[in-house]
Amino acid sequence: MTAVTKTEPFHISTLAIVGVGLIGGSFAAALRQAGCVGRVLGAGRRPETLQEAVRLSLIDEAVSLAEAAQRADFIFVAAPVGAFAAIFAGLKPTLNPKAVMTDGGSTKQNVIEAAREGLQDRIAQFVPSHPMAGSHETGPQAAQARLYQGKRVVLTPLVENHPQDIARVQGAWQACGANLVMLNPAQHDAAVAAISHMPHWVAALFMQHLTQSDDAALKLELAGSGFRDFTRVAQGSPEMWRDIFEANRQSMQTEIATFRKVLERAEHALNTGDYAYLQDMLEVASQARRDWVGQQS
Amino acid sequence: MTAVTKTEPFHISTLAIVGVGLIGGSFAAALRQAGCVGRVLGAGRRPETLQEAVRLSLIDEAVSLAEAAQRADFIFVAAPVGAFAAIFAGLKPTLNPKAVMTDGGSTKQNVIEAAREGLQDRIAQFVPSHPMAGSHETGPQAAQARLYQGKRVVLTPLVENHPQDIARVQGAWQACGANLVMLNPAQHDAAVAAISHMPHWVAALFMQHLTQSDDAALKLELAGSGFRDFTRVAQGSPEMWRDIFEANRQSMQTEIATFRKVLERAEHALNTGDYAYLQDMLEVASQARRDWVGQQS
Repeated sequence: MTAVTKTEPFHISTLAIVGVGLIGGSFAAALRQAGCVGRVLGAGRRPETLQEAVRLSLIDEAVSLAEAAQRADFIFVAAPVGAFAAIFAGLKPTLNPKAVMTDGGSTKQNVIEAAREGLQDRIAQFVPSHPMAGSHETGPQAAQARLYQGKRVVLTPLVENHPQDIARVQGAWQACGANLVMLNPAQHDAAVAAISHMPHWVAALFMQHLTQSDDAALKLELAGSGFRDFTRVAQGSPEMWRDIFEANRQSMQTEIATFRKVLERAEHALNTGDYAYLQDMLEVASQARRDWVGQQS
Repeated sequence: MTAVTKTEPFHISTLAIVGVGLIGGSFAAALRQAGCVGRVLGAGRRPETLQEAVRLSLIDEAVSLAEAAQRADFIFVAAPVGAFAAIFAGLKPTLNPKAVMTDGGSTKQNVIEAAREGLQDRIAQFVPSHPMAGSHETGPQAAQARLYQGKRVVLTPLVENHPQDIARVQGAWQACGANLVMLNPAQHDAAVAAISHMPHWVAALFMQHLTQSDDAALKLELAGSGFRDFTRVAQGSPEMWRDIFEANRQSMQTEIATFRKVLERAEHALNTGDYAYLQDMLEVASQARRDWVGQQS
C-alpha cells in the first residue's frame, strides 16, 4: 500500500473582520465567493457600519472584539493604522490560541510594533500583510469580491511566525486571487512611501493649493481628464491618510526631501530658461512611464 | 409673401490641418463624421505622418504649407506651440483672403504673439482657440472623431476678428460636439497652467524622482492604480510639453512658486508632528475633489 498525502483545500471555519470597510469587506466577500469560509463575524467602532455590512451580507453577525478573538480561527484587521494598538490589545485577552491573524495596514514597521505591544507573547499568531489594492471609495458599500483579483499582496513575516501560519495567510490571499510578494518591513515601508503615499501627499497638497488660488472656480470648471486622474487619489479618507503619514513618517520624510530637490532643480531650469534640461527630464519621465505600462500587461 | 431667412448649415469646402496628430486628426475626423467638410488637406513636417493620416482617411491629400494656405477656406493649426511662428510665416504669402484660421495650441498669449508676427496684416483671419481635450497617446493613429464630444473649448478672440469669422470657428467646434467658453488670453494661460500644465510638471518630475531612487525596480513593481492615474499624464510628448512650459513660463513660475510654499508648509507639519494640520489639509483636499466630481456629472 502507498501512503497518500491528502491536500486539504483552504478553509476557514470562523473568519473575523475587524473594521468592515472597503478592505475588510472585500476580503470577506472574496473568501465567501471562493467558498472557503464558514461563518463571518464583524467587529468595529461604528454599529451602523456593522449593520450595513450585515445587510450587504459581507458578515453574518456583528460582535465585540473580545468575542471575535474567542470564536474566530482567522482574524483580519483592516482599520486605520492608528487604531491597531488598541485593537491588538482588545483581541489579546480572549484570543483563540489556534487563531491566525493578519492585517491590511498600509505600513508594516509600526503595525508590527503595535502588534508586539498589544499581543505580547501571542505575537507569533500575527502574520503581517498589505494588499496593494484600494479605491478612492470607502465603507462597506464599496466592498467587492474582485478587489484583490490579480493584485499584489506584500507579506512581511516575523521571525516568530510558524510556517503553517504563514501558509494559512498565503492561502487566504491566494483564495482572494492575489499575487504574493515577500519583503522585509523596512523595505516595504520605503517602497509604499514612494509609489503610494507620495502620490497621495502630492495630489492632496495640489488640491489644497488649487482651492486656495485666485480664480479657483474658473480653473476647476476648465479642468479635464488629466486633472481628473492626477488628483483622483486625493479623494481618499482623510483620517486613514493622516494615520498613514504618521505611521510612515520616516520614509515619507526621506521621499519628500528627495522630491523637493528634484522640484527645485526643475524650477531653476525654468527660471534660467534651460529648456534642454526640461526636455531631457520629460523624456526620462515619459519613457519610464511607458516602460512601466509595458511591464503591467 | 413673407421673407424667409434661410440658415445655412455649417460647411467647410476645403479644410487644411497643419500637424495631423491626435489633436489635428481628431478635428478632421469629427468634422468629417458630422458631414460638414468637403476635401481635407494635411500639411506637416513629417511625410510619413501625413502618409499615415491619408491611410487612416483623416486627410484626403498631403500638401505643402503654401498649398494649404492657398486652397483651404478653413485652416486648423495643431502643432507644438514652439512651431507656430514658422507655420504662420509659411501660411501668409499664399493665404486665401477668405480663409479663417484657428488653432489647438495649449497656450494663447504666445500663440497670438507668433500669429501677429507671422501673419502681419492678415492677423484678423486668425481666431485663437484651445480644446481642453487630449490623451497621453499621440500621432494620427490616436485620432478619434469623439475626442471633443462634450469637452470644453476656450476661444480667445482678437479685437481684429470679424464677428462672422468668430462664428465660423464656433460653428466648427460645435460641429465637433464641444462646449465653448470665451476668455481673455492671460486668464486662459493662468487657468491652464494651474489645472493642466502643473499636473504634467509634477507628474513628470515625480517619475524622474522615482526612476532615480534606490530600489526603483521594486517600487515600480509594487505600484498600483493610484500610481497609474497620478502619473498617467507624464507619458505625454516630451517635445510638446517642453514647448508648453516655455510658452507658458510666466504662469508656470507663479504656480510653481505658490505650490512650493504649500509643499513646504506640509513638510514642516510632518517634521514637527503637526498631524492636526495634515488632517485639516487632507479634509480640504478630499472635499474639494469630491465637489469637483459632483460638478462634472
